[in-house]
Amino acid sequence: MHQKKRIVVVGGGTGTYTVLSGLKKYADSVDLSAVVAMTDSGGSTGRLRDEFGYLPVGDVRMALSALAHEDDENGALVRKLFLHRFASEGDITGHNFGNLFLIALTDILGSEELAIKAASKVLRVCGTVIPVTHEKTHLVAEYSDGKQIVGEHHIDEVPAGTVRERIVSLGVTPEVQINREAVNALRNADMIVFGPGDLYTSVLANCVVGGFKEALSCSKAKTVYISNLMTKAGQTTHMSVTDHVRELERYIGREPDVVLVNETTLPPHLLTRYEEEGEYPVNVEGIGLNGALYRRDLLATEEIVRSKGDVLKRSLIRHDSDKLASILFELLEGKV
Amino acid sequence: MHQKKRIVVVGGGTGTYTVLSGLKKYADSVDLSAVVAMTDSGGSTGRLRDEFGYLPVGDVRMALSALAHEDDENGALVRKLFLHRFASEGDITGHNFGNLFLIALTDILGSEELAIKAASKVLRVCGTVIPVTHEKTHLVAEYSDGKQIVGEHHIDEVPAGTVRERIVSLGVTPEVQINREAVNALRNADMIVFGPGDLYTSVLANCVVGGFKEALSCSKAKTVYISNLMTKAGQTTHMSVTDHVRELERYIGREPDVVLVNETTLPPHLLTRYEEEGEYPVNVEGIGLNGALYRRDLLATEEIVRSKGDVLKRSLIRHDSDKLASILFELLEGKV
Repeated sequence: MHQKKRIVVVGGGTGTYTVLSGLKKYADSVDLSAVVAMTDSGGSTGRLRDEFGYLPVGDVRMALSALAHEDDENGALVRKLFLHRFASEGDITGHNFGNLFLIALTDILGSEELAIKAASKVLRVCGTVIPVTHEKTHLVAEYSDGKQIVGEHHIDEVPAGTVRERIVSLGVTPEVQINREAVNALRNADMIVFGPGDLYTSVLANCVVGGFKEALSCSKAKTVYISNLMTKAGQTTHMSVTDHVRELERYIGREPDVVLVNETTLPPHLLTRYEEEGEYPVNVEGIGLNGALYRRDLLATEEIVRSKGDVLKRSLIRHDSDKLASILFELLEGKV
Repeated sequence: MHQKKRIVVVGGGTGTYTVLSGLKKYADSVDLSAVVAMTDSGGSTGRLRDEFGYLPVGDVRMALSALAHEDDENGALVRKLFLHRFASEGDITGHNFGNLFLIALTDILGSEELAIKAASKVLRVCGTVIPVTHEKTHLVAEYSDGKQIVGEHHIDEVPAGTVRERIVSLGVTPEVQINREAVNALRNADMIVFGPGDLYTSVLANCVVGGFKEALSCSKAKTVYISNLMTKAGQTTHMSVTDHVRELERYIGREPDVVLVNETTLPPHLLTRYEEEGEYPVNVEGIGLNGALYRRDLLATEEIVRSKGDVLKRSLIRHDSDKLASILFELLEGKV
């Protein structure tokens, strides 16, 4: 029997959610895994982490939701449930139902690992979601002015009026080891996709875990980096796609074989809203890159409506799931 | 095709959970419904009711759990999840996962009614769980000393050192109407089972809803009352089975056709623990009853272990699900 080709998506958060949602439609012909960051420390996940001592499952939840079966009414409902955020007043306000689902399963089954496997069954997930590590740790960033910030959400959320220098080094504290299942996924992959998503707090948050780089070095996979559309205030301000790729290279030890960038014009009326927050289109000229640079229309065209519990509300300008999946599948098949 | 006979269980809480768990095994040959109280106001349900304005779904949750499909691993896990109570420190401590599940569904689908139907599908419930009303109301009890207490959990939980007089009248405030689906279930039933369970706060909490008595008066169903094993402090102290039946009769307008009592000796070492809380075996002589009084071994023999999240922890002395179901099925078939 012909073995399915294996794609591993590395990241967490909205970007990974978008890629996985698209790739899911190819689940019959490809074997899909997501290796996701375990350093989330804000919002619902952070509260559950602080109060209960659970591993932070926010990125796991997003990836599970993206890959959840939704071909029937029940599946679509369970997926919606998993993404639901309680909005009303009270002590559960702001909690994600999916997070509570995962910690209830952790209580019952005794570990986050078993909880993720069980949730995958309940959600009939098309693929495998793998936490990059099973150990508790926090992201730590060092800046060019010598400052150090610990905790994913402190790195992620820049208080108004604050200016952040460039991140010169990212790591985890305490140092932890990559989970064995993630090693196997990376080693056996035919294609490994990095991004899109916050460079430091989603993508590199995986790569800085002990053993990630080594696992990747043993992999024959084609590596793909999907460039972000916009810079992120306090993280990647002024960084071009080449700068992003150089940073990734620093942490994974090789330049990605392929870099995907969007060539479609970004909607000016939305750009002004990003500008208000100090965020700008990533310069995608790709000067100095050695690998192949693919320019495609990768933009989602429908206007994003901010709605209650919407997981994608930050990204008014975002990638289109199907467009991403289509080019990735072509790359996997060697058709481009 | 031979139509399945219809059993309706009226109540809420642990007693109803026990009966339904047993009857579920006959789901292939009987059509099973539970009409449950909607006046819960304590614990997790109460907090969600107070903070979010949701209808109190605690009794619905218990009945759904009892009837949930559990013939495969996934089913058994989802059922366990639904019953799970968060025990750790933090803002979700003490919340039932099943309650959160139901309110998340209510958020998404727009009503408790649709949420219950959807949860029934997800849990693959063997039967139908029907809230006695869809309107918000509170239980109100009047005592022989003229006192009035509003709120199910205030009636239920007697503060230490407090002595409560006899309840002379039970009602709801504001007055609400029975749900149409409950009317149909009662009218079309072949057998209606009351109890076991707290007489006022579980069983009669249904019967005092406007239109319940009238719906019952149109029913040709055989009515069965399952006597409690123990009295309940502050509610049924000193009440014999005849007293229980007379109270039920006052609210439903007829004496049940059959009264089931346990004839097995209650374990003395457990009785002393109940005595400490002012609770004693119900006198089951049944003097003065007109209907049939059946004496059977109805006692659960395995020792109940109090465990984290155990829904049955209050009832150290309790009915056996299978013994109850077996005699109810015989009664339905006219075999006894």
